[in-house]
Amino acid sequence: MASTQVEKLIPGGAPFVSHGPAKNTTEWKEQLETVSPELPAGYIVTKTLVFKPKGAKPECGKLVVLIADVDTQTPGNVIAKAVKAKDARIADAASIKDALNEIPENVSLFSVTPETVSKVDVVIDQRLLETPKKLAVHPSDISVTAFITGDQLKTYLERTGATIVPVEFTLTNIQVVAKAEAKKGAAKPVKEDAAIADAALIGIGVKKEVDFPSWYQQVLTKGDMLDYYDVSGCYILKPWSYGIWEQIQKWFDGKIKEMGVENCYFPMFVSQRVLEREKDHIEGFAPEVAWVTRAGKTELEEPIAIRPTSETVMYPYYAKWIRSHRDLPLKLNQWNSVVRWEFKHPQPFLRTREFLWQEGHTAHLTRPEAEEEVLQILEHYSGIYSELLAVPTIKGRKTNKEKFAGGLFTTTCEGYIPTTGRGIQGATSHCLGQNFSKMFDITVEDPSAREGDIREKIHIWQNSWGLSTRVIGVMVMIHGDNKGLVLPPRVANYQVVIVPCGLTVKTTKEGRDSLYDDISRIEKELRAVGIRVKADTRDSYSPGWKFNDWELKGVPLRIEYGPQDAKKQQVLTVRRDTGEKAPVAQANLTKDIQALLDTIQGDLYTRAKASFDSHIKKVYKWEDFVPALNAKNVILMPWCDAEECEDDIKERSARKEESDEPEDSRAPSMGAKSLCIPFKQPEGDEAIVPGVTKCPQCGRDAKFYTLFGRSY
Amino acid sequence: MASTQVEKLIPGGAPFVSHGPAKNTTEWKEQLETVSPELPAGYIVTKTLVFKPKGAKPECGKLVVLIADVDTQTPGNVIAKAVKAKDARIADAASIKDALNEIPENVSLFSVTPETVSKVDVVIDQRLLETPKKLAVHPSDISVTAFITGDQLKTYLERTGATIVPVEFTLTNIQVVAKAEAKKGAAKPVKEDAAIADAALIGIGVKKEVDFPSWYQQVLTKGDMLDYYDVSGCYILKPWSYGIWEQIQKWFDGKIKEMGVENCYFPMFVSQRVLEREKDHIEGFAPEVAWVTRAGKTELEEPIAIRPTSETVMYPYYAKWIRSHRDLPLKLNQWNSVVRWEFKHPQPFLRTREFLWQEGHTAHLTRPEAEEEVLQILEHYSGIYSELLAVPTIKGRKTNKEKFAGGLFTTTCEGYIPTTGRGIQGATSHCLGQNFSKMFDITVEDPSAREGDIREKIHIWQNSWGLSTRVIGVMVMIHGDNKGLVLPPRVANYQVVIVPCGLTVKTTKEGRDSLYDDISRIEKELRAVGIRVKADTRDSYSPGWKFNDWELKGVPLRIEYGPQDAKKQQVLTVRRDTGEKAPVAQANLTKDIQALLDTIQGDLYTRAKASFDSHIKKVYKWEDFVPALNAKNVILMPWCDAEECEDDIKERSARKEESDEPEDSRAPSMGAKSLCIPFKQPEGDEAIVPGVTKCPQCGRDAKFYTLFGRSY
Repeated sequence: MASTQVEKLIPGGAPFVSHGPAKNTTEWKEQLETVSPELPAGYIVTKTLVFKPKGAKPECGKLVVLIADVDTQTPGNVIAKAVKAKDARIADAASIKDALNEIPENVSLFSVTPETVSKVDVVIDQRLLETPKKLAVHPSDISVTAFITGDQLKTYLERTGATIVPVEFTLTNIQVVAKAEAKKGAAKPVKEDAAIADAALIGIGVKKEVDFPSWYQQVLTKGDMLDYYDVSGCYILKPWSYGIWEQIQKWFDGKIKEMGVENCYFPMFVSQRVLEREKDHIEGFAPEVAWVTRAGKTELEEPIAIRPTSETVMYPYYAKWIRSHRDLPLKLNQWNSVVRWEFKHPQPFLRTREFLWQEGHTAHLTRPEAEEEVLQILEHYSGIYSELLAVPTIKGRKTNKEKFAGGLFTTTCEGYIPTTGRGIQGATSHCLGQNFSKMFDITVEDPSAREGDIREKIHIWQNSWGLSTRVIGVMVMIHGDNKGLVLPPRVANYQVVIVPCGLTVKTTKEGRDSLYDDISRIEKELRAVGIRVKADTRDSYSPGWKFNDWELKGVPLRIEYGPQDAKKQQVLTVRRDTGEKAPVAQANLTKDIQALLDTIQGDLYTRAKASFDSHIKKVYKWEDFVPALNAKNVILMPWCDAEECEDDIKERSARKEESDEPEDSRAPSMGAKSLCIPFKQPEGDEAIVPGVTKCPQCGRDAKFYTLFGRSY
Repeated sequence: MASTQVEKLIPGGAPFVSHGPAKNTTEWKEQLETVSPELPAGYIVTKTLVFKPKGAKPECGKLVVLIADVDTQTPGNVIAKAVKAKDARIADAASIKDALNEIPENVSLFSVTPETVSKVDVVIDQRLLETPKKLAVHPSDISVTAFITGDQLKTYLERTGATIVPVEFTLTNIQVVAKAEAKKGAAKPVKEDAAIADAALIGIGVKKEVDFPSWYQQVLTKGDMLDYYDVSGCYILKPWSYGIWEQIQKWFDGKIKEMGVENCYFPMFVSQRVLEREKDHIEGFAPEVAWVTRAGKTELEEPIAIRPTSETVMYPYYAKWIRSHRDLPLKLNQWNSVVRWEFKHPQPFLRTREFLWQEGHTAHLTRPEAEEEVLQILEHYSGIYSELLAVPTIKGRKTNKEKFAGGLFTTTCEGYIPTTGRGIQGATSHCLGQNFSKMFDITVEDPSAREGDIREKIHIWQNSWGLSTRVIGVMVMIHGDNKGLVLPPRVANYQVVIVPCGLTVKTTKEGRDSLYDDISRIEKELRAVGIRVKADTRDSYSPGWKFNDWELKGVPLRIEYGPQDAKKQQVLTVRRDTGEKAPVAQANLTKDIQALLDTIQGDLYTRAKASFDSHIKKVYKWEDFVPALNAKNVILMPWCDAEECEDDIKERSARKEESDEPEDSRAPSMGAKSLCIPFKQPEGDEAIVPGVTKCPQCGRDAKFYTLFGRSY
């Protein structure tokens, strides 16, 4: 449908904007934010889904077109109920083509026309009809968005002759259910399907396992971690995520200071001449470098780059500062932000144009000393994942193809996202060798020369290592669930939230005050032993609303406290990760709560580790490679270490055809990359036998097992 | 002298570059670094000074032209000795004119010609003749620099027929003197003149009170606080200064977190549309905004600014996040860097194009709440100065002319640099009022409305407040002396340094080991009570060298420890600020050392406070204003609060004519600005009497005392 037609369709007309094509709502929002600065205030993005009802009314061939706020959860059973069917599922492409003469991606509310209306019922999210805000509707042309009112929506549909069934998704439902849960007090986990249905407006509106990109976006924004920003590829880190970064900083900063590393700050700007001094290195970054060319109204004589990383920024000064072996080792670190203006689709935390990180840059007299440090740092990186974020990683070395440009070798810890089956680079620690010291002429006289000998100049050995806010994204992807974030206790801003319960209109003022006094005392006791605790004493929200809110934000442990608990001298604990409820005697409060937090931290790690382990598939025949990959595994395979073989693996494992199933349309189709050559190699019967074990892809001698996977 | 002539003068020719005029060596270096990226490696900037010897040889009219490395200290008495005179002072303008036919500013080595050579002797810093590096020489034309070799220098001078006297300034001198000092062990402060003469190559080469800009530069670079950077106006914060920033961060971050402020991170980029939304506000920043227009080779469709401050970056999101009075107060802070591309002469810490700071942005329901916070923050800012940096400030309100653009009112704490007599803005805490909330439409419904009433939308009240690394510059300027930095114990990376002393070639291995064991134990004891201590056990440096090195770096307290101290079960302490030496019994070690550090901290503040207090002059007659200003005072004067009067004060207090004395040529000639309207106003007899007390400048009724001064 051409954009000019849109206007005619909408009763009274409406503003519309053109943008790049968007395959799903996440991309759509991004496109809107990118191209169009002047959008209507607080506009609502809509979704149009087609359902096929089951076992119901006589006219069984009729489909249901649902038009809803994209953030409203619209489970099939609720849709079914609205049209008096037993159940409803997302319709298949053939049925949609048959009824609306459209492919699924192009279905919009404008697919409902006087011609097609007899084949469908229309269910509308009540909220769209009531809101004063503009609705972003996505005509068949996926590059155009129109902004219409609820009235216009209704008028349009009525003119087509459609039967409109409004369905209300209200907040009260959640509260009722949550209150009931609170009263039950039993350790009965909420059923997942039900949880999602109740989530409605403030909860997560899509399932992690069904629409992972939208889930990720919602869990971050609704969980208060970040907000989208006016400049594409940049995001706002809200206190809820920045606090996690502060925990990581504190831990890692302590570790590196013990190693004798000192913090410093180099300017964010770098001149072209300096930036481009090391060719191999800059080649990797050049297309992404942001250039400042103007200040106020003055054109700069020479454009100035914003650092994409600081090797070339810092090393000219290393050359100046390092005059003698006595100046070694030099170990500096920066906590800063760097800019890489990527043109690929940005993703919060994982691929952003500006990101926060630390970058360590050290100089050593000898190679063994440099190499020892590279591994020490990698150990700390892996510690941030395992100890703080409860995320397992695999440590290893990058292949030559994947190593840091300009360096000697790169070590890495690699993570795994079970939902997508993709690997993800955790953090890298590089040994740069002498390449940069030769380029920047960083030398010292050999201190081992004997008295009277000529002291040779030797080039020093360098490392660089960095870890970014990406770690937060990895943690969210792994632990989050359909109720929202799940934060490991070690990094959560609040480890425990206390919610007063069981207060009713009949509660006396004394009863109420006494309960609040108790809560204040409990809060203080926990805080005194270093537990980060928050008593949620907001009057204007019900306990159920609060449960939901803190679950969304992933607080590891909830304490419910009501008059019954007071009587029994206990508190009721509810784990975020499992939903398990258990009373804790106030006599053992601090000890038991701390133990419970430790248990949660450990369990999160154990579960993630089990998931990772069960998805590492050893492959010895090439024909097993792609099927294992498609089954969301990473692959551990004997490998020849040849770059062209790596290229072939990528090429041969790229998905050639789209799957039929619509829920797979967002699955990655890229080929597999090498993730790392794990330090811990299979042993015993599985060990590589030199000259005997072959690379399954190319048949050459295998050198070591290498981990391959689709990757972020 | 035209630049084309330079080539002819130099035997063999030499490369030269043109640049902006430079009045002194600091500016000269800056000019070189700004205009010319391709300078010879490690070139040496030279200085040419003309001395007038006293009470000496028959040909008493002869002057001495000194050519030296700019960083070499060349005291008059050493010059005098070289030409067999009793003493020598910088020559007056008339004598220079007479001998070289030049004004002092234009004197260069090329002023020595066959025509003038009979009137002068030439003293050359031996180092210039020996170095393999190129020498930057400054011909009469102060906009041209030539790079010549030591040989060329010598050849040129020889051809003029000059008598050349090479003078050696060596490191050994320092060590000899320092060792002698160490042996004496008595509390005899080193004489200031001598100290400077001994400083030579590694010490500070110029006196704070004589050439403050060069002193400031040297104390920062030689004290290891920062290094100059390839991009003009940007500086490298080395660990020695960054560590001070970390101390400040830790302290202030704790204070604001107690107030309920949370940290977050907003992108450094801001779109033009958003940046320019508040007109008054952006007007102040627009000429200094750096614009990114290109990424890799791709021109951006719309240029993107780097934040000069984050009001307009953050407030669109405040509008989004603040939906109800329950979302208030919203208190966010960022530790980040901002960019203001100033074209004025940059100065480390004080005026830099990128700088580190924190910026707090808070939103409140009511004005009183906002105002209370503004003052609370100002109290913390003043606390950073007084408690951590031992710097006194005066708290007050800025005049309307000087307040933050777009805000309601600005509070400030103002410091004072005794050496220049200039005031310096310490940090500012702004009440923005409702201006931004109106511009960005940040409203909530009035919660005080009664049930059933229409709830009015009210615009929220906002504050913003910022403190930057400038504080470090202020601290250095105030406490530093001619031996280098003087760091207050509360912020110094090392509060105590321990130097092993009294070891000679005759010391047995056992004696040596025992001494080092003791030192290690002392270090541990001090560290155990939280004192930041460093044992300097470097073998390759003498105690004297180490004393000098740590004095340069400003470590508050030195502990000397030798066999005699071991015998007496004591340590010898030496205060950096006063040079006072005192033994401390090891039995009382930690208690006494902590007490001594507290005393140093207190004394630094007390001295700075006395200096500030004695330079606040109350002025009641306009004719006293400029003389008081010229005597390096700030002025407290009854004032009318009229903006045009403020303009007149500035205009009338600008220095019209250059002083005759050459050492004054760098004194500021700008007019006085209002620094603040102090909260603490003179009382009793001095109090303003409304309608009676007049403004001395314009004669209108005075409203309050206002602090005026020349200012950074």
